[in-house]
Amino acid sequence: MKKLLAVACLLLSVSLKAQDANEKQIRQIYDFALTGSSSYSWLDHICNAIGPRLSGSANAEKAVAYTRMELDKLGLDKVWLQEVMVPKWVRGEKETAYFIEGKIKVSLSVCALGNSVATPAKGILANIIEVHGIDDLKALGTDKLKGKIVFFNRPMDPTKVETMEAYGGAVDQRSYGVLEAVKYGAIAVVVRSVNLRLDDYPHTGSLWYGDLPKEKQLPGAAISTIAAEKLSAALKKNPGLKFYLHQSCMRYEDVPSYNVIGEITGSENPNRFMVVGGHLDSWDLAQGAQDDGTGVVQSMGVLELFKKIGYKPKNSLRVVLFMNEENGLRGGKKYAEEAKSKNETHIFAMESDSGGFSPNGFSFECPDADFDTALKWKPLFAPYMADSFTKGHAGSDIGPLQPESMFKVGLKPDSQRYFDYHHAATDRFEAVDKREMELGIAAMASLIYLFDNKK
Amino acid sequence: MKKLLAVACLLLSVSLKAQDANEKQIRQIYDFALTGSSSYSWLDHICNAIGPRLSGSANAEKAVAYTRMELDKLGLDKVWLQEVMVPKWVRGEKETAYFIEGKIKVSLSVCALGNSVATPAKGILANIIEVHGIDDLKALGTDKLKGKIVFFNRPMDPTKVETMEAYGGAVDQRSYGVLEAVKYGAIAVVVRSVNLRLDDYPHTGSLWYGDLPKEKQLPGAAISTIAAEKLSAALKKNPGLKFYLHQSCMRYEDVPSYNVIGEITGSENPNRFMVVGGHLDSWDLAQGAQDDGTGVVQSMGVLELFKKIGYKPKNSLRVVLFMNEENGLRGGKKYAEEAKSKNETHIFAMESDSGGFSPNGFSFECPDADFDTALKWKPLFAPYMADSFTKGHAGSDIGPLQPESMFKVGLKPDSQRYFDYHHAATDRFEAVDKREMELGIAAMASLIYLFDNKK
Repeated sequence: MKKLLAVACLLLSVSLKAQDANEKQIRQIYDFALTGSSSYSWLDHICNAIGPRLSGSANAEKAVAYTRMELDKLGLDKVWLQEVMVPKWVRGEKETAYFIEGKIKVSLSVCALGNSVATPAKGILANIIEVHGIDDLKALGTDKLKGKIVFFNRPMDPTKVETMEAYGGAVDQRSYGVLEAVKYGAIAVVVRSVNLRLDDYPHTGSLWYGDLPKEKQLPGAAISTIAAEKLSAALKKNPGLKFYLHQSCMRYEDVPSYNVIGEITGSENPNRFMVVGGHLDSWDLAQGAQDDGTGVVQSMGVLELFKKIGYKPKNSLRVVLFMNEENGLRGGKKYAEEAKSKNETHIFAMESDSGGFSPNGFSFECPDADFDTALKWKPLFAPYMADSFTKGHAGSDIGPLQPESMFKVGLKPDSQRYFDYHHAATDRFEAVDKREMELGIAAMASLIYLFDNKK
Repeated sequence: MKKLLAVACLLLSVSLKAQDANEKQIRQIYDFALTGSSSYSWLDHICNAIGPRLSGSANAEKAVAYTRMELDKLGLDKVWLQEVMVPKWVRGEKETAYFIEGKIKVSLSVCALGNSVATPAKGILANIIEVHGIDDLKALGTDKLKGKIVFFNRPMDPTKVETMEAYGGAVDQRSYGVLEAVKYGAIAVVVRSVNLRLDDYPHTGSLWYGDLPKEKQLPGAAISTIAAEKLSAALKKNPGLKFYLHQSCMRYEDVPSYNVIGEITGSENPNRFMVVGGHLDSWDLAQGAQDDGTGVVQSMGVLELFKKIGYKPKNSLRVVLFMNEENGLRGGKKYAEEAKSKNETHIFAMESDSGGFSPNGFSFECPDADFDTALKWKPLFAPYMADSFTKGHAGSDIGPLQPESMFKVGLKPDSQRYFDYHHAATDRFEAVDKREMELGIAAMASLIYLFDNKK
């Protein structure tokens, strides 16, 4: 009995010491992230010196070259580019939209949705009909919709505290509105921007044509939330009003681009890989500061931090800056394909693609046993108010990576302001708070450290 | 045994039903706060139509009249003003500060500290000596300090995740620097702004002269963090450089002002009072949006919410908009005095004076037994990510309120951006995110509801 007690005491003391060591390591990680990180100045360069980085653009290539150069400076074990073919879509001249009220043309803030075709050169002038979702189309039918522009105007639900949920509940109109409206003979689609705020910025984002032949593809555009309110009010007074849309966007042949990858080779398991990443491309309207400049510089910042504090990961740790999350996910798919073809064993993947706001915690996409392990780490994040640990989506770019049983996790920052900026001209460097972004680096590095050391 | 089991089951079922009812009520509270609250438009008026509201100013009186009028519209049981004498301090003309480098005057962003005396009309031109805290003064002594300006330049500690702690670790230089420096014959004090960011805005705030006779009171000023870095670098090159300061601020006789109070009389315990409040005054440089416009409109918003959703508190609930938190705390003291003299039984007080950012939880200043009760409510706030419950400071305005054993609590919002705005010209309406502020209303109302219904 005495012996048993002694063993129990020993085990407890070992476990307490480990906990204590973890606490100290995490404190050191936070201290460095809040005082020594290069991430904010990298973000400054990516946003202000480079700017919008749509896949296939010259700026996207500048971002590839810049981040590769900065990774080269960190003294990692390897830095390389992984070629990937990406779509090339170009907005063309500034879009125009207005409705006609009596003899007055009321202009609206508008932008083409990503991947959209152009309107005819003289634009489209037609009646417009407001709906609140894809289901409404069926109810209205071809009779009511043929030859008209469909106006999707279901707002994001403001009562969702997690705004990502509100996004999920509204974005189908933008993504699949054209694909559905065309079935009923509609000739174009206009969508209320997926934005919780009332403001005058149109928010772009991808629409998808599926297998639709080129000649059946309708133009799709987003108008600002203020424009949507204005148009809706005018339609109530005059359901027969005419709406004009002009856009000249073009889709070109795919072009080559790159994922940017850096690696610290594992000291114990060089052939077991952990990935941390964000996406390097952004929409063309924005500097892509919150989406996803912060994810890029935070991920780079994790490797910088480990190098600078002298922590050598046991498993290999790769930063992957994915290309083309916004309109194709080609980078994420390419990385997964190559990992598979090379038989690389991936054990962990983390993504930051929900903005650089104060981290609340993490979203885990992993087997229950791994989530149980994560829950044991939760108390270590309480002093940093980053201990909201939930099961859910981890990240789009790491989505294709196999096996299914991998430990995948997404940083979960405060989401209240995210859609003020998402895919709009407001997503600028100034929208990012340095400390909030740095706390994300610290939370990410702490979780990777814990995973790397788990028994 | 069967009987006992039956009773246990009954109790469990009653308790589960209560939990379920609480969850539903809190969901309703959040739904209203995020969709129906007037708080954001009140804040717009207070910031943009009124503006800075330093105690004793015409704007402070406009804010009293406006908030009283808005409370009158809510259909509360009582609305009234509570007179309180407040200090009147006026900044006067724009301050000037520069140092002389060779033949060049290098201008610095500067503002007088609140309560400070003016410099002589021609300003002060003298040597300046950099220190990192009050302790340094003793080490330097009168020999080194006599006839000089003291420059306090200890920055806030960026590694504190709770920025309020970093504030606590730096603000003594601003509050008591003059009181200490005068002991060693210094002739003025210049302080690095209490701001974590490097920017060019000076942040004001109170300094205190204690019992110092008028003729011994030194002028005190704050320079921006960028100016502090510039001055420090110049002093390293040339410790003998001259510094010039001019300010013409004035302290007048006290003037009358008001706390604004509204009450919903309790349905069961009309003579037991719960208080929710923020402070109506702000510094003169700022619109006082985050400090403390949000606290004011959130507190008003709690009573509006209860009225609109039809929740009738069992105990009387008062909103108190305190005057003069910034440079005297007269409103808080007055409210406490009158409560005592009228023998009013106060059982609960909540303050929101840490900004209108996403709420992380609450800071409880109460007996252990009450904190244990609060911890039982904690899981109800987890879905809203507002479940960081800690013991600590609740609020300055409710500080004087007795008894000690009262349940006092402060809203604890995310603190990363607070000192970007605190007491500076940056504290404008635009600095407040509508949803973040509204989540604060919901968290506050939910906790008050739970307290009101506790057995």
